[in-house]
Amino acid sequence: MKILGIDPGYAIVGWGVIEYEASRFHVLGYGSITTPAGLKIEKRLEMIYDGLNELIEKYSPDDMAVEELFFGHNTTTGITVAEARGVILLSAMKHGLNIAEYTPLQVKQAVVGYGRAEKNQVISLVTQFLGLSAPPKPDDTADALAIAVCHAHSGGSRIADYFNK
Amino acid sequence: MKILGIDPGYAIVGWGVIEYEASRFHVLGYGSITTPAGLKIEKRLEMIYDGLNELIEKYSPDDMAVEELFFGHNTTTGITVAEARGVILLSAMKHGLNIAEYTPLQVKQAVVGYGRAEKNQVISLVTQFLGLSAPPKPDDTADALAIAVCHAHSGGSRIADYFNK
Repeated sequence: MKILGIDPGYAIVGWGVIEYEASRFHVLGYGSITTPAGLKIEKRLEMIYDGLNELIEKYSPDDMAVEELFFGHNTTTGITVAEARGVILLSAMKHGLNIAEYTPLQVKQAVVGYGRAEKNQVISLVTQFLGLSAPPKPDDTADALAIAVCHAHSGGSRIADYFNK
Repeated sequence: MKILGIDPGYAIVGWGVIEYEASRFHVLGYGSITTPAGLKIEKRLEMIYDGLNELIEKYSPDDMAVEELFFGHNTTTGITVAEARGVILLSAMKHGLNIAEYTPLQVKQAVVGYGRAEKNQVISLVTQFLGLSAPPKPDDTADALAIAVCHAHSGGSRIADYFNK
């Protein structure tokens, strides 16, 4: 099964594609779609949509795993992130992908084994687990891989268990 | 100039198309795109996107005027409305429309003459002004027409002035 993990945003959309077969993971690709701050939001949304369409056509993932949003203090930024998430979901829908959503807590739980883990801990564990030589940059990309791994493990064992064996 | 006014939402997207030529208004069409509550959000986003594409191809508007979002108490609903707004902006962008955004306050100010006007007052004034026999239903549709009228009047005279002449 091929999983496209997405960390949604409008300035940076982190993405990572992993293949999960017989309990083995292969990283097929990862990176980020970035949009320049000076552009109008509708143009940035279009860049995200077009960029994601290209990725999906390149990797043909079965599922998209995407982080759920929750709004903290800055609801103005939150609205724009949600608008970006809308076009991300649309792109997945237009390509017939199954869509799964996970909270940051679920991702941390799946990767580290507890929901209050530090961001760095998640990134370092995902990097090791996927056999990457260095943590993917920016953090949004590492987060996207963590979300993909979380989806692969949903209902299954945790990465932490893997290391404890 | 043809203006497509949009009141964004994910259960109901109100829309109205008006033509504004030499200070005269013609209503070309209005209605709403509705999506069933039982469907997954990504399917609802697709219905909104496809529905809007059809409308734009039918009416060929020059501009889209769309209400700005601000979040009140219910941020969970707000996130979904913003996701819907994302695909609405994408549809306009894909068809090369100019996009203008207005706050509810600006719409009320443009239509009634002051920002704290009641919703019913806005609807009744827009109905009269556009020469419609009855207020369009649901309210989201009437709101969309009000947003379109607001855009036509942006930087110009208010509807209230029209009635006072």
